[in-house]
Amino acid sequence: MLALRYERDELRVAEVPLPRDEREALVRVVLSGICNTDVEIARGYAGFQGTLGHEFVGVVESAPDDARHLTGRRVVGEINAGCGHCALCAANDARHCSERTVLGIHGRDGAHAEFLQLPAANLLIVPDEISDECAVFTEPLAAAIGIAERVSIEAETRIAVIGDGKLGLLCAQALALKSTWVLLIGKHAEKLSIAARRGIETAMVDDARRRVREFDVVVEASGAESGFALALDMLRPRGTLVLKSTFQGETRINAARIVVDEISVVGSRCGRFAPALELLKNKSVDVESLISEQHTLLDGVCAMRRATEKGIIKILLKP
Amino acid sequence: MLALRYERDELRVAEVPLPRDEREALVRVVLSGICNTDVEIARGYAGFQGTLGHEFVGVVESAPDDARHLTGRRVVGEINAGCGHCALCAANDARHCSERTVLGIHGRDGAHAEFLQLPAANLLIVPDEISDECAVFTEPLAAAIGIAERVSIEAETRIAVIGDGKLGLLCAQALALKSTWVLLIGKHAEKLSIAARRGIETAMVDDARRRVREFDVVVEASGAESGFALALDMLRPRGTLVLKSTFQGETRINAARIVVDEISVVGSRCGRFAPALELLKNKSVDVESLISEQHTLLDGVCAMRRATEKGIIKILLKP
Repeated sequence: MLALRYERDELRVAEVPLPRDEREALVRVVLSGICNTDVEIARGYAGFQGTLGHEFVGVVESAPDDARHLTGRRVVGEINAGCGHCALCAANDARHCSERTVLGIHGRDGAHAEFLQLPAANLLIVPDEISDECAVFTEPLAAAIGIAERVSIEAETRIAVIGDGKLGLLCAQALALKSTWVLLIGKHAEKLSIAARRGIETAMVDDARRRVREFDVVVEASGAESGFALALDMLRPRGTLVLKSTFQGETRINAARIVVDEISVVGSRCGRFAPALELLKNKSVDVESLISEQHTLLDGVCAMRRATEKGIIKILLKP
Repeated sequence: MLALRYERDELRVAEVPLPRDEREALVRVVLSGICNTDVEIARGYAGFQGTLGHEFVGVVESAPDDARHLTGRRVVGEINAGCGHCALCAANDARHCSERTVLGIHGRDGAHAEFLQLPAANLLIVPDEISDECAVFTEPLAAAIGIAERVSIEAETRIAVIGDGKLGLLCAQALALKSTWVLLIGKHAEKLSIAARRGIETAMVDDARRRVREFDVVVEASGAESGFALALDMLRPRGTLVLKSTFQGETRINAARIVVDEISVVGSRCGRFAPALELLKNKSVDVESLISEQHTLLDGVCAMRRATEKGIIKILLKP
């Protein structure tokens, strides 16, 4: 089968054997989405070698006996596969299992391929109301919702989201379902307009700089060092900075500022899929407007390059 | 009167006028303590110009009419003086008032002087059981206790404190009153032994490196970039890194690590004085062993230099 691989410092589409661990489900990928994490991995982040991609919708080709009901069903899949026997896995949360593999990120080939495999327990059936193009956003939308697992969000919580890329647009929309005070900050009027159409206040970065110490929660979804500094400026004392972006290298921060203003900096990674599917089913979040282009998997290398270009939001790959 | 001043990039003991704002109490300083923040200010941190020092015990020389009962009493003083009319001040917590001045740190001359002034509301009478040498530790001990305002500490919370300086030694002792699992990490056997005598587990830095992902809470009290990195290594997923040290300049961090392990980084600055006085009264914390030397105020410049030398813990100044 074809797969978009990052190996030995090189990104390429290659012919590889079909995955064939019969203890797991085999999924035929229908669509996959390119995430910034994929781009960062292809720059050396996380030291991963193998098939990229962790956002997908697919159809179950085969499944172990105890999950045979999944065969032929359209599914999305949680990306962390735990050891199955530690305390975290026993509590049905493999997201921090120290032995976990992570689809297309750590120890497990990913979704930019014709087929992938995952434990059947990771798979969730996609309701018929959700199109393939929307279902492929389940993973990043779950990550956006996951913020509320890490910080308390009330209707009156004043929130700013920094970054108008795909992650920022999803975070702003997800948070606007919980709080009436969400501001999305970015550099691209046409991207901000997607949030504005959902009734979310938006601002260009230079205008946002004036809003000093105004926010209870600031979500850094730009992945830029400057976003971290802006977030500190915008937070009230004892406010919370949520870090969402994973990227290669070091970030320089003003640690004294965190101490003096008693800021909390909270990392947030993966969320739960079931509530994300619920939001997609109810069309509570606009994900279709985030799709910039669809490429064939064979064109994956070019698609990865396009994903970093100005004006592009989400690129989908079709095997 | 004499005062230890930092002005125009120069540290010196100077003759200055007595403070004379009659809306505040005038305190004759009996002892003051040199904090690392003083040293950092003399390196340019916080942009402060004026009399240094925020740790003191003194005797009230005069007070406004409504606080006349304080006259002649031995006191310590909370260092943040608020505007008095914002919501924070109304809730009796000036620590984050945006208009606040801070004794010897921001907009207000400090305690390394013969006299200082503070609002009478900031002063707390020192119980007779507490010696001057112990009372001067009220401020840093309050800061150590303040950690528990920012992160939940239970008897079973596994805590590591990085840094065996004065702040780390106070943090370890204060936290050991709440949790049975406290490890103090440092580079100086003789400093670690002060905590060990109180029944606290200690480790040299190189030995501590092996204890990966073992701790729920790690307190960074070394002020070193390497302490931040070690703290991230020692924390379990979703653990909390408490930042206590204020220092000049930028810190390089691995932000992706905070995201992937969903770490919380929590700044902690000032604590409450009343519980700190209670601990000193009950001799629950050993502060006397932290006193390395006592200098005269006139010798303040030399004392500040000594405060940065190897083996020194706390230096006190006597006007």
